[in-house]
Amino acid sequence: MNMMPPKMRDQVVTLAHGGGGKAMRELIESVFTQAFQPDAMEDQARLMDAALQETGARLAFTTDSFVVDPVEFPGGDIGKIAVCGTVNDLAVGGAKPLWLSAAFIIEEGTEIALLRRIVASMVAEAERAGVRIVTGDTKVVGRGMADKVFITTSGVGVIGPDRNLRAENVRNGDVVLVNGKLGDHGAAILAARGDMALSSEVTSDCAGLGHLMESVLQAAPDTRAARDATRGGVASVLNEVAEAAGCSIEIDETQLPLRSEVKGMCEILGLDPLYLANEGTLVLFVPADQAEAALAAMRALPEGREATSIGRVGDAMPGRVTMRTLFGGARIVDMLVGEQLPRIC
Amino acid sequence: MNMMPPKMRDQVVTLAHGGGGKAMRELIESVFTQAFQPDAMEDQARLMDAALQETGARLAFTTDSFVVDPVEFPGGDIGKIAVCGTVNDLAVGGAKPLWLSAAFIIEEGTEIALLRRIVASMVAEAERAGVRIVTGDTKVVGRGMADKVFITTSGVGVIGPDRNLRAENVRNGDVVLVNGKLGDHGAAILAARGDMALSSEVTSDCAGLGHLMESVLQAAPDTRAARDATRGGVASVLNEVAEAAGCSIEIDETQLPLRSEVKGMCEILGLDPLYLANEGTLVLFVPADQAEAALAAMRALPEGREATSIGRVGDAMPGRVTMRTLFGGARIVDMLVGEQLPRIC
Repeated sequence: MNMMPPKMRDQVVTLAHGGGGKAMRELIESVFTQAFQPDAMEDQARLMDAALQETGARLAFTTDSFVVDPVEFPGGDIGKIAVCGTVNDLAVGGAKPLWLSAAFIIEEGTEIALLRRIVASMVAEAERAGVRIVTGDTKVVGRGMADKVFITTSGVGVIGPDRNLRAENVRNGDVVLVNGKLGDHGAAILAARGDMALSSEVTSDCAGLGHLMESVLQAAPDTRAARDATRGGVASVLNEVAEAAGCSIEIDETQLPLRSEVKGMCEILGLDPLYLANEGTLVLFVPADQAEAALAAMRALPEGREATSIGRVGDAMPGRVTMRTLFGGARIVDMLVGEQLPRIC
Repeated sequence: MNMMPPKMRDQVVTLAHGGGGKAMRELIESVFTQAFQPDAMEDQARLMDAALQETGARLAFTTDSFVVDPVEFPGGDIGKIAVCGTVNDLAVGGAKPLWLSAAFIIEEGTEIALLRRIVASMVAEAERAGVRIVTGDTKVVGRGMADKVFITTSGVGVIGPDRNLRAENVRNGDVVLVNGKLGDHGAAILAARGDMALSSEVTSDCAGLGHLMESVLQAAPDTRAARDATRGGVASVLNEVAEAAGCSIEIDETQLPLRSEVKGMCEILGLDPLYLANEGTLVLFVPADQAEAALAAMRALPEGREATSIGRVGDAMPGRVTMRTLFGGARIVDMLVGEQLPRIC
């Protein structure tokens, strides 16, 4: 067959690709540096940004490992999630994301074509977010010692002198906003695993939130805090913020933006959508008089088109999150106990 | 028995520890943040250092994943190596290491006591290196989906305005120096795996090289380039530099600092010590008239006590590394082809 690739040994990753020699260099050059195009081939990237040298500026630094299973799913793949996740951690703290690192742990036998697709997805997402992937690493482990590929991204950004977003700033009367539907990532991964015989059209909400955050902070400059609701879902974010700020938070079940498919899947499986993972869900805490401005700013961008208010900060029960239910009652929304879904991100 | 721990469920990591809820928070707080003591509990660390705001300063950024097997070995563990490796990548580029991130991928069933030992070793090594571990992440994967624990560290440092170390600077006549014995890490890991029935007293050379680099750069300010010889050993470093600089490098077999045990192990196993991994081996390229000063500076510190010259840069065969052998001949020292030892770091 004339489509036969020229070098069979290059079709899957072997232990030699992690050994520090020629095979490793070939893999790194042909799959990684060709795509990421770092400036230097030293052991480190050397960088500067004028904003970092402004008086009062601070550097933001964050890291996340990604082990999502499956590595490719409707709406994204592990590469997209690895870029978005780290960009989002920077953005929700008020930082402008600048540079990312990417470290790959690859299982022997992983297809190089899969790696190429993942890397291409990282490059595309970095471009959308306006960041550069400037340094990286690859390690190879034997079969059964990892599951295809794990990626760890770290990110560096700059926080302007006037920015001070933190959970402790949140106070009584603030409004809680989200940028769109909840739980799509968790639902998409569940369906993609196929082990519950559910077919679904839900795609992951995996998206970078940097531009959305910039836009919100222009429109609602007194925004108190922001969070990216990933593992543990919106419920975990609300609990963390309530605890840090010493406030209570009351959300309204009728206001929760949920796709009917996600709701249905949760009912069948006995899951609570408030704990389902998201990968592009911004939770904002905004003074009431700037809530409309923040919503309008979000709705002007595709990733915020369905932005809505889901609740309000109070002072009745410091540290507690409650939900007014559809039937008019109230229930406590606690931290997730135990696991909901392993390897969701 | 009165030594029985109070909570059995806390003795090993479970999937719930990765789920984003209460169990994860408990694990992170009791094992990681208690030891690393980051300033903030936001998704990102917020930092600044006066040196970064100097005119002409550059930020150095690097990352490495560590998958070493076994995770504990004579002379170190995966935590020590994860801190030293990233500190060293910063230091050899002329950066002062400032901050590290640490991301853990943990296999279900891993003992929490092991994690605590690893984390303690990271804290001790960070202290020695004068860096802080400021942000992190943990993920948990099922049994057989990873091997105990993998760690990815990223590092940020600052390169002063006057610093410009790079392989391209190396030129004809420069001297090649190393700070001590070669191949100890590779030999220690080999022996620790126990699969070749070799018993050995060799311990890993795993060490931070930041202070040594500072000292060398004071004494030999025109140092051209430096490398940390890890996977692929000294041979790989020399080849990379020869290629980048368009020079040849000639080393002298009689000058190579090798322990007799390491030599013996290599002879038995048919390995070449030039390709054995190191984790605290500095390779320096210094103008001839500053070589003595650089050696003296290294020898004044414990990690450089056995510093010595191993060769010289020439221009006979650009990109080539050769070795004058014990018998007076010469042979080409090529890049490592294929693998020597998997999961060495």
